[in-house]
Amino acid sequence: MRQGGEPYMAPADRFSAELSTPFTFTLHNTDASGARRGVMHTPRGSIETPAFMPVGTQGSVKAMTPQEVEKLGAQIILGNTYHLFLRPGHERVQQLGGLHRFMNWRGPILTDSGGYQVFSLGELNKISEDGVTFRSHIDGSKQFISPEISIQIQQALGSDIMMQFDECPPYPAQRDYVANSLELTLRWGRRSLAAKTPNQPGRALFGIVQGGMYADLREISAQRTLEMGFDGYALGGLSVGEPKALMEEVLSYAPAFLPADKPRYLMGVGKPPDLVMAVERGIDMFDCVLPTRNARNGQLLTRYGPINIKRAEYRESLEAVDPSCGCDCCQNYSRAYIHHLFRTNEILGMRLMTLHNLHYYQTLMAEMRQAISQGDFAAFKANFLHNYFAVTEGA
Amino acid sequence: MRQGGEPYMAPADRFSAELSTPFTFTLHNTDASGARRGVMHTPRGSIETPAFMPVGTQGSVKAMTPQEVEKLGAQIILGNTYHLFLRPGHERVQQLGGLHRFMNWRGPILTDSGGYQVFSLGELNKISEDGVTFRSHIDGSKQFISPEISIQIQQALGSDIMMQFDECPPYPAQRDYVANSLELTLRWGRRSLAAKTPNQPGRALFGIVQGGMYADLREISAQRTLEMGFDGYALGGLSVGEPKALMEEVLSYAPAFLPADKPRYLMGVGKPPDLVMAVERGIDMFDCVLPTRNARNGQLLTRYGPINIKRAEYRESLEAVDPSCGCDCCQNYSRAYIHHLFRTNEILGMRLMTLHNLHYYQTLMAEMRQAISQGDFAAFKANFLHNYFAVTEGA
Repeated sequence: MRQGGEPYMAPADRFSAELSTPFTFTLHNTDASGARRGVMHTPRGSIETPAFMPVGTQGSVKAMTPQEVEKLGAQIILGNTYHLFLRPGHERVQQLGGLHRFMNWRGPILTDSGGYQVFSLGELNKISEDGVTFRSHIDGSKQFISPEISIQIQQALGSDIMMQFDECPPYPAQRDYVANSLELTLRWGRRSLAAKTPNQPGRALFGIVQGGMYADLREISAQRTLEMGFDGYALGGLSVGEPKALMEEVLSYAPAFLPADKPRYLMGVGKPPDLVMAVERGIDMFDCVLPTRNARNGQLLTRYGPINIKRAEYRESLEAVDPSCGCDCCQNYSRAYIHHLFRTNEILGMRLMTLHNLHYYQTLMAEMRQAISQGDFAAFKANFLHNYFAVTEGA
Repeated sequence: MRQGGEPYMAPADRFSAELSTPFTFTLHNTDASGARRGVMHTPRGSIETPAFMPVGTQGSVKAMTPQEVEKLGAQIILGNTYHLFLRPGHERVQQLGGLHRFMNWRGPILTDSGGYQVFSLGELNKISEDGVTFRSHIDGSKQFISPEISIQIQQALGSDIMMQFDECPPYPAQRDYVANSLELTLRWGRRSLAAKTPNQPGRALFGIVQGGMYADLREISAQRTLEMGFDGYALGGLSVGEPKALMEEVLSYAPAFLPADKPRYLMGVGKPPDLVMAVERGIDMFDCVLPTRNARNGQLLTRYGPINIKRAEYRESLEAVDPSCGCDCCQNYSRAYIHHLFRTNEILGMRLMTLHNLHYYQTLMAEMRQAISQGDFAAFKANFLHNYFAVTEGA
């Protein structure tokens, strides 16, 4: 294998994108329940919706190779602007040929704006009209991100779908705070749009609708965000600690404020039943660290609900994690072995558990897309929920 | 993919072995330098020698799937009796269908006797004629292993090549201690042979030659171990902290005490130049945690010697770890990316670095086997050493 002297063989153009080809979204059909099936086209590939985006926080979907993520059916991943800005730095990534080449992922990448992590991970935030000053969670250094800098970072990374810089209010938050915050997010949205390099219709920029748990504020935020003309629209400020019923309430009205012909992205959501519920409300895109993070904590998803592999009841089980699952973990290893790997803190355990959970999510999305095409999403949902909540572990 | 209800599909017989088919070793040719090429046949598959055995300490070659290990060219792996005895326990592994099925490795497995780990990891050892009492490094519980128990554990695991129980003296050790210790190892060797289930010629049992750094004691140990008639012979008590020159000295005479028609195994060795040197001395088998452990510490092997990926000089390097290497790590990722993964403690970094180092070792063994077949091992060695010590990192 060692033939001597060849240079590193991944040419930069293998990872380039023709940004003059516009980003588009085509809605295929809407089920009677409200669930939508469609497809986004980007210069780096198409994404069937509803889609789940695995999170590649620091330039890696944790424990997975890009080839494995692709093989699971993921057509797009998410990269975190905040993390990559701090380490290794967006300028270094750009110099190294962009995030796609850096991490060897050829498909589309959506980058968040960095705002959410600034608020949740950084310390000593100071929010001003101009932007946010914060201290790095890594070395405590003082940093600043504005809408213009966020777009600059996202473009340097080579993002295919960028998110506007926004403020994500915590839960609970007073109505006055949320109302003022959404105005700031609107102004930041306008500045994000203005900061984008012109004549690159292949690189999408999505707006973010805020408004907390207040229906009228959501409507105002949506209307005025729509007026600015983004390529897609996200619902922000959900899955931030509010009761599940409250998120469901917001999702009962907020998607209707968004145009039917643009993709709708529910940021940071969620558990499998949340995805099914939100798809029924007309959501097209999701991202969440849950399948990867929970895998590393031993929580594995099955058709009959999550199981916790560290439980003693699994240590002699020759069954697969999910006997009905086709992933490499379930086809080749027993619960007893995964239990052993978890208890001995073996890296292979992290790998197999992550692989399984991501397979579960991608399979769930594929099943939902199929159900929408067949016009029987309601039946799918009923069957899904029946199974998912059927068994109580250890009962 | 979720078709519902199938049982875990790895049938036990896929992992079974026909133990009535004898273990054999065939020597193909011996190079003028002394290096030997041959093949071991076991009921679970053949192993071309000289062979390097990746270490699967706790039922997993760290960070790798068995499929990846196989794809790298490894035809045998090593399992640690001590670790598996403590967790999950050999009886549980046996109940689950044996170690091969447990970890999904279909090829041969060599198990050590547990002795080395008892002495190096356990606490409060008490060595008696009967065996060794020690405390588990996991929970402090009191444990006991004798030659009979060691063989019982190895058989329960389903080992293809078992090692006799031995005492491995530390370095330095007084001549009297070493002389007494090798007598104990000889008695334990006889008991190990007696403990083996009869009429299973497919399951090999290797003897271990001790004698420390004393030539006459090595010769005595070898002669009397040979008289007992094992299927292969190991040199123990090397790579235990002695100066490199001392190990080379022992290897200059000790292999000659062993019969030409049986495999010779140098336990726990070593660095790439050590392997090349030892192959020239007529060694056929090696195991070492170095490629996997050092990978996780960022030390990566290249044709021009090891590099430490955490060094700042690599953070903007678009080169592969080893531009002449054909492994998935070097074909798809830059040094800059591996440096980033290491610094951010990403599991993918551990994976790719381990994959690269194991690829390096397996490629080195394949190159040595080829050089032996071609009768030009001396030229191979000269070229190898010239390259390996050619470049000083950061110079």
